[in-house]
Amino acid sequence: MAGNSFGKHFQLTTFGESHGPAIGGVIDGIPAGLVIDLEAIQSELDRRKPGQSKITTSRKEEDICEFLSGLIEIDGSIKTSGTPIGFQILNKDSKSKDYSHLENTFRPSHADFTYSEKYGVRSVAGGGRSSARETACRVVGGAIARQLLSHVEGVEISAYVERVQDICMPNAPAYYSRKEVDESMVRCPAVDISNRMIQRIEQIRDQGDSVGGAIVVVARNVPSGWGEPVFDKLNADLAKGLMSIPA
Amino acid sequence: MAGNSFGKHFQLTTFGESHGPAIGGVIDGIPAGLVIDLEAIQSELDRRKPGQSKITTSRKEEDICEFLSGLIEIDGSIKTSGTPIGFQILNKDSKSKDYSHLENTFRPSHADFTYSEKYGVRSVAGGGRSSARETACRVVGGAIARQLLSHVEGVEISAYVERVQDICMPNAPAYYSRKEVDESMVRCPAVDISNRMIQRIEQIRDQGDSVGGAIVVVARNVPSGWGEPVFDKLNADLAKGLMSIPA
Amino acid sequence: MAGNSFGKHFQLTTFGESHGPAIGGVIDGIPAGLVIDLEAIQSELDRRKPGQSKITTSRKEEDICEFLSGLIEIDGSIKTSGTPIGFQILNKDSKSKDYSHLENTFRPSHADFTYSEKYGVRSVAGGGRSSARETACRVVGGAIARQLLSHVEGVEISAYVERVQDICMPNAPAYYSRKEVDESMVRCPAVDISNRMIQRIEQIRDQGDSVGGAIVVVARNVPSGWGEPVFDKLNADLAKGLMSIPA
Amino acid sequence: MAGNSFGKHFQLTTFGESHGPAIGGVIDGIPAGLVIDLEAIQSELDRRKPGQSKITTSRKEEDICEFLSGLIEIDGSIKTSGTPIGFQILNKDSKSKDYSHLENTFRPSHADFTYSEKYGVRSVAGGGRSSARETACRVVGGAIARQLLSHVEGVEISAYVERVQDICMPNAPAYYSRKEVDESMVRCPAVDISNRMIQRIEQIRDQGDSVGGAIVVVARNVPSGWGEPVFDKLNADLAKGLMSIPA
Repeated sequence: MAGNSFGKHFQLTTFGESHGPAIGGVIDGIPAGLVIDLEAIQSELDRRKPGQSKITTSRKEEDICEFLSGLIEIDGSIKTSGTPIGFQILNKDSKSKDYSHLENTFRPSHADFTYSEKYGVRSVAGGGRSSARETACRVVGGAIARQLLSHVEGVEISAYVERVQDICMPNAPAYYSRKEVDESMVRCPAVDISNRMIQRIEQIRDQGDSVGGAIVVVARNVPSGWGEPVFDKLNADLAKGLMSIPA
Repeated sequence: MAGNSFGKHFQLTTFGESHGPAIGGVIDGIPAGLVIDLEAIQSELDRRKPGQSKITTSRKEEDICEFLSGLIEIDGSIKTSGTPIGFQILNKDSKSKDYSHLENTFRPSHADFTYSEKYGVRSVAGGGRSSARETACRVVGGAIARQLLSHVEGVEISAYVERVQDICMPNAPAYYSRKEVDESMVRCPAVDISNRMIQRIEQIRDQGDSVGGAIVVVARNVPSGWGEPVFDKLNADLAKGLMSIPA
Repeated sequence: MAGNSFGKHFQLTTFGESHGPAIGGVIDGIPAGLVIDLEAIQSELDRRKPGQSKITTSRKEEDICEFLSGLIEIDGSIKTSGTPIGFQILNKDSKSKDYSHLENTFRPSHADFTYSEKYGVRSVAGGGRSSARETACRVVGGAIARQLLSHVEGVEISAYVERVQDICMPNAPAYYSRKEVDESMVRCPAVDISNRMIQRIEQIRDQGDSVGGAIVVVARNVPSGWGEPVFDKLNADLAKGLMSIPA
Repeated sequence: MAGNSFGKHFQLTTFGESHGPAIGGVIDGIPAGLVIDLEAIQSELDRRKPGQSKITTSRKEEDICEFLSGLIEIDGSIKTSGTPIGFQILNKDSKSKDYSHLENTFRPSHADFTYSEKYGVRSVAGGGRSSARETACRVVGGAIARQLLSHVEGVEISAYVERVQDICMPNAPAYYSRKEVDESMVRCPAVDISNRMIQRIEQIRDQGDSVGGAIVVVARNVPSGWGEPVFDKLNADLAKGLMSIPA
């Protein structure tokens, strides 16, 4: 295994490079009979895609998730059949033209050099497998996992931006609804703080730089006893998941 | 994990039902820089598909394997990039019409009943995930594994039908080339035995029955020391692989 | 992983060479609160050990299984605590003296040569890791698995020798109790057949040879739906387990 | 699998409760022929044990690691044989007397409650499996991994305490030798900072409280390309490992 799978019982395997025909994945281990809301999955994908607001990069992607297996229509609703869910997201603009200037150089802070060292083969186009576009497949896996957790155990998960540079919400971590979070362009549910964050980001961007921050993720209704006791502690698996996101 | 993956270092994960949009898979763990012969893969798929001769079932399938990731064109040849190889085979005729008579019954010697018991959800169409069509994805994985073994270690693998009912080749197991094997409609490389086998199969088929047999698989140039010593012995993994083929 | 583990949910990892300080293992994934009958485990170990009857090899081993973790005494009975069960079986006579004649040679039909090729390091003593003694750890794992299956699902498993060379029980495969099977020195529950088998074995042994046979394993009360549908079919996993036994 | 294993190629499985007969583990996947320095392993265990200095808890443990398999003496040096390394550390004082006051209560900030909820069975004695004593097995696994990395790739790893509360080394992260680090009772290689840390800890301890800090781990000579590209990034696996340590 070369690290393209995550999870044991509910396992997501992903594939795909940013400029190949498609990215996609397989979800194995999902129970049968779970009602799946396809629109909710697509709305999480729409939420991920870059270029939604004036403060982030302007590249336009349209990520449509097509499901190839594992779902079945029963009495008008889409349900899992217990078999693996295969899905793909076509790369709309997969031409490699605009990266030819990188053929003999490596971008700083990108994985290009490491890939080149590790594999001896270089995909010049847009970061190849190391592209942040790979996270779209995680969004699909996560959106289905969210529905599973919600239906089966009533677990609800929400996240928001708590801090940008030194501008920080004074509130203790709390659960905010998707609606509350999405009203802010930076996804900070405190309106005044949100406005200051946006100002700061624009100011820094005008200086040709970018800026870090902190997010809070809250899960509620989590039953006691989740996670395994020694190496696979819940915190340990969450830490691994977070640290594996390209950033 | 729900058993849709095979292998540790070279791992094939498959998905897909016989009458959904597509079947496919992901191959993880393949080294970078391996030249891949796409035509050889397709020719193995063509060889698998039913309806090729007058002595087997006559259903016509055309399985075209599309590769979605993991391959890159370098200096005119297709090479692996070290990232997972995602692929799909579209189901050409995925309408479920012709199985409606099975809605309230189970076919004998099929996995329909077991699936129904295990998942509580039934895919009436053509066996769903348990369809022998799933083996097309194994053929793709196997064809790539064969190229890897051949390029890297010079290992060559060949198989043929040695016995049909009591009609058996007198020869000891040996390596026969693909060409020698494929000249026979039953894939028995001894011409006279092959003819008797075909006669027997037609005779049994005319009685409305089918008949069993035995195959021989020969691998040559296998280096000593392959396989692991205790549970993952080479023989043990081969036995598992063979027994997992639907038949 | 180098193949010293078996199973996914209930996983046995084993260690130990025939002439080191001890052999042993770790069982992970067993549910908490299961009552464990330690005597039944020891009796299965006693049943495995060579030298029990005049018709097999006469080496005397006394395999006492010591449990190091995972069990807890509650209200007078031993129960699993949900943590991994570590166990060891000391090698009583672990001196390597009697194998020095093998230092420059390899025994036919043993794994000595393969180990030497694979690892470049040779444990001359008694087969090292490839010794059939390794199966004692499987017996411990299997005895606990048997208790788990019996307590939780009422599954009962029994095995017997059905055939020795051409001497074969005429009966269809059936469930025989441990008592019925163990009354026969060759573990064939049909008295007359058993006697003929013993005669044959002694006759062959007197000629300086040994002889093969066939066993039947019967599991009853198995719920439908066990095993996974594609690669990890129940039959496939059983085949792998059987083929991994050194013989 | 219930989370008692860590690693894929080099895999450590651990077992054992703080007050059972022994704790221990199995290391699978280590190459054959590696010279192992047993004293170095024991010295790392000695370094882990509590009660070494007047500023930490005073419980006295003597952890002697016994190796049960996987090692072989060749020409006067201990080498790996390629088979799994089994080891155990006996619990010297495994009586459960001193925890009876906990039978009807749960200690704050310990895993007792969670275990009770998860398993329904409670090991009252000293935290059972969740005891920090479990880390002794990680120390053995880590000490062997360190020797493997050092012999095979020249990788050297060192760690030190950089900060206690607000007392922080001003230096950038750097590699300090074991000797330099161990000269300080708090393992901070800057003498003056170390003294201030010790003062602070004693002061806080006199108030009946304890205090946090930060450590720095430095690995040098790490080849480029280690870790896997997507989910199993090196950083992600390190984060999981760190977060799985009980603290």
